[in-house]
Amino acid sequence: MTLAADVLDAARARGVMIATAESCTGGLIVGALTEVPGSSDGVDRGFVTYSNAAKQQMLGVRADTLEAHGAVSEQVAAEMASGALRHSDAGIAVAVTGIAGPGGSEHKPEGRVCFAIAEPFGTRAETVEFGAIGRRQVRAATVEHALQMLLDALRG
Amino acid sequence: MTLAADVLDAARARGVMIATAESCTGGLIVGALTEVPGSSDGVDRGFVTYSNAAKQQMLGVRADTLEAHGAVSEQVAAEMASGALRHSDAGIAVAVTGIAGPGGSEHKPEGRVCFAIAEPFGTRAETVEFGAIGRRQVRAATVEHALQMLLDALRG
Repeated sequence: MTLAADVLDAARARGVMIATAESCTGGLIVGALTEVPGSSDGVDRGFVTYSNAAKQQMLGVRADTLEAHGAVSEQVAAEMASGALRHSDAGIAVAVTGIAGPGGSEHKPEGRVCFAIAEPFGTRAETVEFGAIGRRQVRAATVEHALQMLLDALRG
Repeated sequence: MTLAADVLDAARARGVMIATAESCTGGLIVGALTEVPGSSDGVDRGFVTYSNAAKQQMLGVRADTLEAHGAVSEQVAAEMASGALRHSDAGIAVAVTGIAGPGGSEHKPEGRVCFAIAEPFGTRAETVEFGAIGRRQVRAATVEHALQMLLDALRG
């Protein structure tokens, strides 16, 4: 049983569909969820908002928030997650925005990733510093952490 | 040099951004493109439209088209690709919709995938029968074929 399969089982048990809003992972979270056979009853859609314009147009992230905090911030992650919930038929959404590297940006270090979970009753965000472990590894660790957050939220 | 890196180089040479619209691959095409360091200058966004509602709401696929041809059809692939172009800042979009399995659906065989490429001057679609080679393998083969179509279109 993979983590993704556990997440889908928990979503089915709660009777909700899942949406994702992804920047640095570029679709790999929803890619992992849809690797599970029969996932179509638990996965509604994914927003891969690689550019800032996409974050604003697809998810309603505010220009003010991007300007004040930068794309890699808990504030933007929270707006991405709540936007994904609002613009989908899902009952829970996870969002990630981070710096996969190589190298930092926005004066922020490589390996920093901000996560958020949105549910109808609220949104919460957190930051993980994975460090300069390499682009592929940061992305893989981000997928796993996002799936674990979904699982905890769905079982909580 | 990976195929994804070649696609990004070709997009840069043409001065266009890329969008994806994915059903059966669930984000793996945009995931492959964004694996390339520095891909943010070539990847605009991805629409992972796993449900039919998502295809209609995010991309403007018509209910009539879904009804008449089914989700796995060249007609739906073409509407997904042109919708991705229309709802993004990209200059080229690729769309895929298929049956990764296990098992067929809509009276269509496992391993059938419909692809489309949209550019401002037009859209073209094609179907590939990968056969019952397994879910993971169908998805991987679909990613590779979609990237090759993007490369051919960008260089053509």
